[in-house]
Amino acid sequence: MSDTASEPTEPARDDEDVYALDTNAVAQIMYAVDAGDQELLKSELEPLHAADIADLLEQITAFDRRRLILLLGEGFDGDILSELDEGLREEVLELLKPEVLADTLRELDSDDVVDLLEDLDDEQQEVILDALEDSDRVAAENALAYPEESAGRMMQREVVMAPEHWNVGEAIDFLRDQDDLPEQFYHITLVDPRLRPVANVTLGKLMGSRREVLLQSITEDTFHVIPVTQDEEDVAYAFNQYHLISAPVVDEDERLVGMITIDDAMVVLDEEHEEDILRLAGVSEGSLADRVMDTTKRRFPWLAVNLATAILASLVIAQFEAALAQVVALAVLMPIVASMGGNAGTQSLTVAVRAIATKDLTGRNVWRFIRREVLVGLINGVIFAVVMGVIGVLWFGGPEIGYVIAAAMVINLVAAGLAGTAIPVLLEKAGIDPALASGAFVTTVTDVVGFFAFLGLAVVIML
Amino acid sequence: MSDTASEPTEPARDDEDVYALDTNAVAQIMYAVDAGDQELLKSELEPLHAADIADLLEQITAFDRRRLILLLGEGFDGDILSELDEGLREEVLELLKPEVLADTLRELDSDDVVDLLEDLDDEQQEVILDALEDSDRVAAENALAYPEESAGRMMQREVVMAPEHWNVGEAIDFLRDQDDLPEQFYHITLVDPRLRPVANVTLGKLMGSRREVLLQSITEDTFHVIPVTQDEEDVAYAFNQYHLISAPVVDEDERLVGMITIDDAMVVLDEEHEEDILRLAGVSEGSLADRVMDTTKRRFPWLAVNLATAILASLVIAQFEAALAQVVALAVLMPIVASMGGNAGTQSLTVAVRAIATKDLTGRNVWRFIRREVLVGLINGVIFAVVMGVIGVLWFGGPEIGYVIAAAMVINLVAAGLAGTAIPVLLEKAGIDPALASGAFVTTVTDVVGFFAFLGLAVVIML
Repeated sequence: MSDTASEPTEPARDDEDVYALDTNAVAQIMYAVDAGDQELLKSELEPLHAADIADLLEQITAFDRRRLILLLGEGFDGDILSELDEGLREEVLELLKPEVLADTLRELDSDDVVDLLEDLDDEQQEVILDALEDSDRVAAENALAYPEESAGRMMQREVVMAPEHWNVGEAIDFLRDQDDLPEQFYHITLVDPRLRPVANVTLGKLMGSRREVLLQSITEDTFHVIPVTQDEEDVAYAFNQYHLISAPVVDEDERLVGMITIDDAMVVLDEEHEEDILRLAGVSEGSLADRVMDTTKRRFPWLAVNLATAILASLVIAQFEAALAQVVALAVLMPIVASMGGNAGTQSLTVAVRAIATKDLTGRNVWRFIRREVLVGLINGVIFAVVMGVIGVLWFGGPEIGYVIAAAMVINLVAAGLAGTAIPVLLEKAGIDPALASGAFVTTVTDVVGFFAFLGLAVVIML
Repeated sequence: MSDTASEPTEPARDDEDVYALDTNAVAQIMYAVDAGDQELLKSELEPLHAADIADLLEQITAFDRRRLILLLGEGFDGDILSELDEGLREEVLELLKPEVLADTLRELDSDDVVDLLEDLDDEQQEVILDALEDSDRVAAENALAYPEESAGRMMQREVVMAPEHWNVGEAIDFLRDQDDLPEQFYHITLVDPRLRPVANVTLGKLMGSRREVLLQSITEDTFHVIPVTQDEEDVAYAFNQYHLISAPVVDEDERLVGMITIDDAMVVLDEEHEEDILRLAGVSEGSLADRVMDTTKRRFPWLAVNLATAILASLVIAQFEAALAQVVALAVLMPIVASMGGNAGTQSLTVAVRAIATKDLTGRNVWRFIRREVLVGLINGVIFAVVMGVIGVLWFGGPEIGYVIAAAMVINLVAAGLAGTAIPVLLEKAGIDPALASGAFVTTVTDVVGFFAFLGLAVVIML
């Protein structure tokens, strides 16, 4: 696949869609598909990056996707498969003829093949493994033997290494003699006689140093070794935290078995963020191209949990039927207290979940953090209590309803600060992803406390 | 600052805190601070990466932070400043003596100095600019002349370039003769006679090729040029989308003015995600180390907006006071409909906001997307309508309340699907960040529609 140099000769376009697919190009592509014109289709796709073609395939209908891929035939580039949303890969793989698939896969790096394989069912895995050459198949099968979402799945096996006692000249001559250097590499990893990595030398340093300089004297300050079983989320964290470009991966005997580069770590970081942001909203991962029934199923569980918590809140309200029947204003105002608590709780919760993910919230500062959030809830609670108390009095006459809603507001915003911080921290300690489960618990607390405080105080003060 | 090689000899620790700061090390550091033992403090900090020291400073109290920094004195590493949370930089800068600051800054790369400068007030900027050497100061001032959050602020000015007609041997000799190659570089950028970048050659390819090979014949497939005024968010998108490692930056005359590397793009991607996730929860950026009053102020605006929308919903309820006085069950059940709508709307909204950010939701598929979300709302609405209808009947006798809550549920979940998709799309079109503003609008719609549909239907069917 060729390049996509952004053409600086073009007039500056609207900021919003600098990297959006060009509408004219897409129109031409779809025209070629409609006309069944394979040559035109190929020439239109030629200048596009595989990632952009994958985006296009994700955005058109399943019907158009099918026609485009069938028309393209053996012109299908393997990189498109790697770039494609996981949800669509199976669909697209089934459209490729076996011989096209085999050609396609042979062009891919070992880590990309593994990435493709791991999301497929056994039958499709077999089809792909059979299409690979023997050495590639063995490499892919080895990688699949590592746990899902581990460094072993992320890494490429092609590593450039040198004995730790070499000098620059020896390293350069060695590189010059290699026939198949990896596509992308930025460091030479120095290893001891037992193949354990001890340091990295950047290619830039290597090129800028005289031949007799020892490699050991020009190693990088920051050197980080990744255990092959480490979770990919931690790998991404390490790259981001220590600004790594590539890092050697070692097995349990500390021997070099592969290498991870920052571009793969960036993809994982992006995926982890996506997962967190969706989980916080009660959405499990899916694809924009998912069909209605798949999406409905993905959304259902969280809504079911929410129904249960909403019913719990209603049970609290039901305890106060007599009061509600006597003072209808209570029914009018009670959702305000619950809603404010829910929002304040979500604020605390989101900050806590992020801080846990970035390892900024630890045992050292957790009490200070909880105290801060509770105090913030208290202060904002008092402010909104005054505002809402005044509104309550003006709206419904008598000062009592003002006292009641003001007091309930303070209580619920303090509860929100406490629940919004303590719940994610406790879930994390229990080994449950706080992004996934905190929301339901926190809004349950703020609903129950909100309704109970407001209606309970009303009974005490007003009736 | 030296390295933090993860020690593969250590026993495998609990997965959760692979990269958490070691508790013993922190205890030793705080002991040194308490004892006023500068030597011990230095020796304990020595093996830590600057990013980890910054994390430690963020996690301890302001009092301890002050003592630690004063005790460390000129041992303070400039990289710690770069790694530090923006909210804490001013505080720490004020603790550093001018001569320590000057030493500290001289070690930093030009892009790191700019990153430090841009968040400071004018007075502190002056202090730092004065501490720099002349050439560095001019470079920093030039960078600050570019718009905030633009490629010009992200880039480093140190670039390694070569005329497009050179061969491998000429390039290698040139590199060998350079005294001050950048710390980190992975490509040589080929330029035409007017200094416009035309292609990249990776150092790996350069090392693996014979001297007489023309650079033009070993250029990278994917080549991407970044305009200096491009928004940093788009820069990060390009790196992630096209798997770039480094990219040349050009001015309006298309001339090479700098280079951006993937590690900086990864930092921006991480920050943008953080911003999105916090904005969706109604939290503006801040720091875990912020004090109570700062945090209270940051949380206040969104809660104020929420109060306004909650009052709006209460005004809807107030229209039905007569009905509520007659049938108290309505007050008990009405929050359930609103809550389910709010949750379903948040699901659709979050998916839409993410898809807009990743440029997956475009004019091409927006109608299909809205239709899907509405259908998902309809189907889940019908399912939960049946469940809730049955519960309503069992709880309060009579079938009518079952019909009412079932119908209101369907209506509100459809409204949630529609509002959750249409509102972020419209905000984006209006140039407003959908992550920031969508939540308030969507929950207003689901609250108002939920209460109105439920109470309105109750009046029609039950009274």
